[in-house]
Amino acid sequence: MARERLWLYDTTLRDGQQTQGVSFSTPEKIQIAQALDRLGVDHIEGGWPGANPTDSAFFEAVPATRAAMTAFGMTKRAGRSAENDEVLAAVLNAGTKAVCLVGKTHDFHVTAALGIGLEENTDNIARSIAHVAGQGREALFDAEHFFDGYRANPGYALECLRAAHDAGARWIVLCDTNGGTLPSGIGRIVAEVIAAGIPGERLGIHTHDDMGLAVAGSLAAVDAGVRQVQGTLNGLGERCGNANLTTLIPTLLLKEPYASRYETDVTPEALHGLTAISRQLDEILNRVPLRQAAYVGASAFAHKAGLHASAILKDPSTYEHVDPATVGNQRIIPMSNQAGQSNLRQRLSEAGIVVKPDDPALARLLETIKAREEQGYTYDSAQASFELLARKELGQMPDFFEVKRYKVTVERRKNKYDRMVSLSEAVVVVKVDGEKKLSVSESMDEAGCDRGPVNALAKALAKDLGPYQEQIADMRLVDFKVRITQGGTEAATRVIIDSEDGQGRRWSTLGVSPNIVDASFEALLDAINWKLLRADR
Amino acid sequence: MARERLWLYDTTLRDGQQTQGVSFSTPEKIQIAQALDRLGVDHIEGGWPGANPTDSAFFEAVPATRAAMTAFGMTKRAGRSAENDEVLAAVLNAGTKAVCLVGKTHDFHVTAALGIGLEENTDNIARSIAHVAGQGREALFDAEHFFDGYRANPGYALECLRAAHDAGARWIVLCDTNGGTLPSGIGRIVAEVIAAGIPGERLGIHTHDDMGLAVAGSLAAVDAGVRQVQGTLNGLGERCGNANLTTLIPTLLLKEPYASRYETDVTPEALHGLTAISRQLDEILNRVPLRQAAYVGASAFAHKAGLHASAILKDPSTYEHVDPATVGNQRIIPMSNQAGQSNLRQRLSEAGIVVKPDDPALARLLETIKAREEQGYTYDSAQASFELLARKELGQMPDFFEVKRYKVTVERRKNKYDRMVSLSEAVVVVKVDGEKKLSVSESMDEAGCDRGPVNALAKALAKDLGPYQEQIADMRLVDFKVRITQGGTEAATRVIIDSEDGQGRRWSTLGVSPNIVDASFEALLDAINWKLLRADR
Repeated sequence: MARERLWLYDTTLRDGQQTQGVSFSTPEKIQIAQALDRLGVDHIEGGWPGANPTDSAFFEAVPATRAAMTAFGMTKRAGRSAENDEVLAAVLNAGTKAVCLVGKTHDFHVTAALGIGLEENTDNIARSIAHVAGQGREALFDAEHFFDGYRANPGYALECLRAAHDAGARWIVLCDTNGGTLPSGIGRIVAEVIAAGIPGERLGIHTHDDMGLAVAGSLAAVDAGVRQVQGTLNGLGERCGNANLTTLIPTLLLKEPYASRYETDVTPEALHGLTAISRQLDEILNRVPLRQAAYVGASAFAHKAGLHASAILKDPSTYEHVDPATVGNQRIIPMSNQAGQSNLRQRLSEAGIVVKPDDPALARLLETIKAREEQGYTYDSAQASFELLARKELGQMPDFFEVKRYKVTVERRKNKYDRMVSLSEAVVVVKVDGEKKLSVSESMDEAGCDRGPVNALAKALAKDLGPYQEQIADMRLVDFKVRITQGGTEAATRVIIDSEDGQGRRWSTLGVSPNIVDASFEALLDAINWKLLRADR
Repeated sequence: MARERLWLYDTTLRDGQQTQGVSFSTPEKIQIAQALDRLGVDHIEGGWPGANPTDSAFFEAVPATRAAMTAFGMTKRAGRSAENDEVLAAVLNAGTKAVCLVGKTHDFHVTAALGIGLEENTDNIARSIAHVAGQGREALFDAEHFFDGYRANPGYALECLRAAHDAGARWIVLCDTNGGTLPSGIGRIVAEVIAAGIPGERLGIHTHDDMGLAVAGSLAAVDAGVRQVQGTLNGLGERCGNANLTTLIPTLLLKEPYASRYETDVTPEALHGLTAISRQLDEILNRVPLRQAAYVGASAFAHKAGLHASAILKDPSTYEHVDPATVGNQRIIPMSNQAGQSNLRQRLSEAGIVVKPDDPALARLLETIKAREEQGYTYDSAQASFELLARKELGQMPDFFEVKRYKVTVERRKNKYDRMVSLSEAVVVVKVDGEKKLSVSESMDEAGCDRGPVNALAKALAKDLGPYQEQIADMRLVDFKVRITQGGTEAATRVIIDSEDGQGRRWSTLGVSPNIVDASFEALLDAINWKLLRADR
């Protein structure tokens, strides 16, 4: 049986940005757009050009994508033509392949919020959509509050959809804006809309999670005939978030009846990357990944109950509805030490370290890692530090140099123009080949801006390492992440540093301490040591 | 129309304890049981007596509850009588009003996992349930893997249910143990079970969230006729968790068709306590509450989009499907990039600052906020810093004191025992009432551990503020969050500090700088200034 095409529309960069505490920078938006494109969604809604500086900046630097880049905006305002509405013009000027305009379909909102007549509103929808389509763009109409509107006045809500449809909207997206419609209601209303003459091939669904039912509502709409599903990565979005694409995509691809009924542009290989994309987004937002997230959470395939764990070892299907590998996640059996050791050997071999299965160092290393994870270390996100720790434990780590001491000063005072200025300075003392070397650096960059104590430390540390100096000359610090963790009884700071070198290598190292400068120093030291190991080869 | 009774069964203390990283102590279990009882659930499943020391200890100290306290266990093992199975005896010996026994209903699990015949298994179910009922207890049968089992062999799965039913089980709970059954499948199978002669008044539903559909699956089962819903507070549970009662209860009580169709023992007053109970559980588990949780999350009624915020001010029903007060939560209108002037005025009035709609300061303040957000400031997570910024812009901010300069030193060296130790020291110079004051502090805590430069700065800054000293004596820093943001072209560090005082106030302040120490200092200064504003009142 030929499968029907289902379209995936991502709005992480627009509705996802409505999440409290979330605001993306332009480089972050670009990174996310590229990840979405690798995943295989059909549309990437990038933001509202003209509404705020970040969104405008993104469309100026928009990356090339296979997916249709989409600008979001609203239907033209009353009292002016579509051509003369400068808000709409800013949206079109972003030059995207697709344009999505939100408009009202609930009579109460038209009269109460917009304060215009019902006919004027349908006219605004029709003219705006026609204007977009007339420019050769793919036009989408977001029917805001559609389900509430349909319940209040089905005739008028349908009239709004028809206005968009007849004006040439490729997609008419039914929005449950307040997240208050049950899946059963969504299914029934979608069926009625299709019966009223708007074909399912032109209908999309956009739900919110205010009752924990956004994913279920989207599936109910698909069951009833819509062919586009909107959502966000990790369920970001206004209030309780949007439908979670990270959950919906594997369900649509792996579970029946969806798997054999529909096809999307997400390949099985791309699906293997789903867990990584979910974690990457959290990394960008500096959020702690939700352990219990469906499919991609660290606990999603963790089998804690003793009875479950032993059954899983006999046959994983006893307590797993899908294979964790299909979404790039892994099974965790917290009780099993055996699983721990085989996992560990796998990771060591990835780092080029071969250890025999019966080597007692394996158990010792496992203990060390457990103890350090208790303190707040997370080796999952710092493979280079993991390798160094393993080499130390296995006696395979050379002593390149020794740090005798360091001292960092941060000072802030008024300068002679009575302006507050700050400056950081670091002194590092190392011993290399029996020789003591003192280095001092300050944190000022070329623009005269103080980059802070970690910058000063990094510069001082890399200033003079004697014979090793040349080997680290091409490395640079490219990212720096800080998180406060609960290490034992007291909060500790975890610093992860990403470094790069001239040969295109990129590696992550880790430091943990109650003292943020000290945690950073530990990560910096690991970064240099890892590079020196490679330089030997 | 008379409403039908719906029963709520909580398993936070049993299945919820299977959450990775969760283990309750006995006093914690008692606290949670009492909270559940106040809420008005019908059954509290307390654990498995005899399976582990914590569960056994809880049943020895079990609190008196209106709800039926329930002990969990499994059906008797093969080859012995119900009377002589010591695992079952331990469960009954807990002396609870209700006893819930889990058993197999999936033929594959019976033969593969238990390794016994199918008839022997139905016999085990019947005898175990009869034994419980014979002791005058309320007997419940948890039909493990029921939906998978029914799909594989509907005849046998139904036979297992009938065995429990005929042996006197008050409730037969259909479990989607692996969380892999879609709500549509659950609805269909429940209807078939009822058609096969097991009445809905004796059926319960138990779902897991592996597809993000546990709540939807429970509702589908209720729609199809079951009358008991099982779940956990905050959706705790094995892997991705169980059906979230914190979400299901308000939906069942507030939303149609449920609200007028069913009644439970949860009163409207108890529902007001729902948000508090959810937070209390997180407090006990030392978890950060999920901001986006349906109904009870801190962001559940946060309206960040400018268009939403202005409509909410006219009529909350425009973007809220229920009133936040019904579940004891509150509306938030955060400041953000997208915010308009009406949003801004609302936030100002929450901070006690009244500004006329046409005040030109509003536009100026909005510009300032936008410019600062470009630099990496996020005022939606730091209301106190927002208030200070607004007061400065509006000329309503007193100058309590002035910082002339500060200096922080972090030093790490070997001590006399040849161990690396670190120490941070801060000097702060402030001018208060024309008088210059120098303060110095170091970062060592009582345990001799270096808490780092920010700790030293905080101590030095709060050490001597002359006449204001007394007003800040009861404040303390309770949380410290750091992230790297892209502020303009260069990375900047954003620090958010949460403070508390003796009057139970909690407030968040913000600092941004390429220099992490400087960003922290800015947030510390705001924290003190905000507290001084309050002290005046």
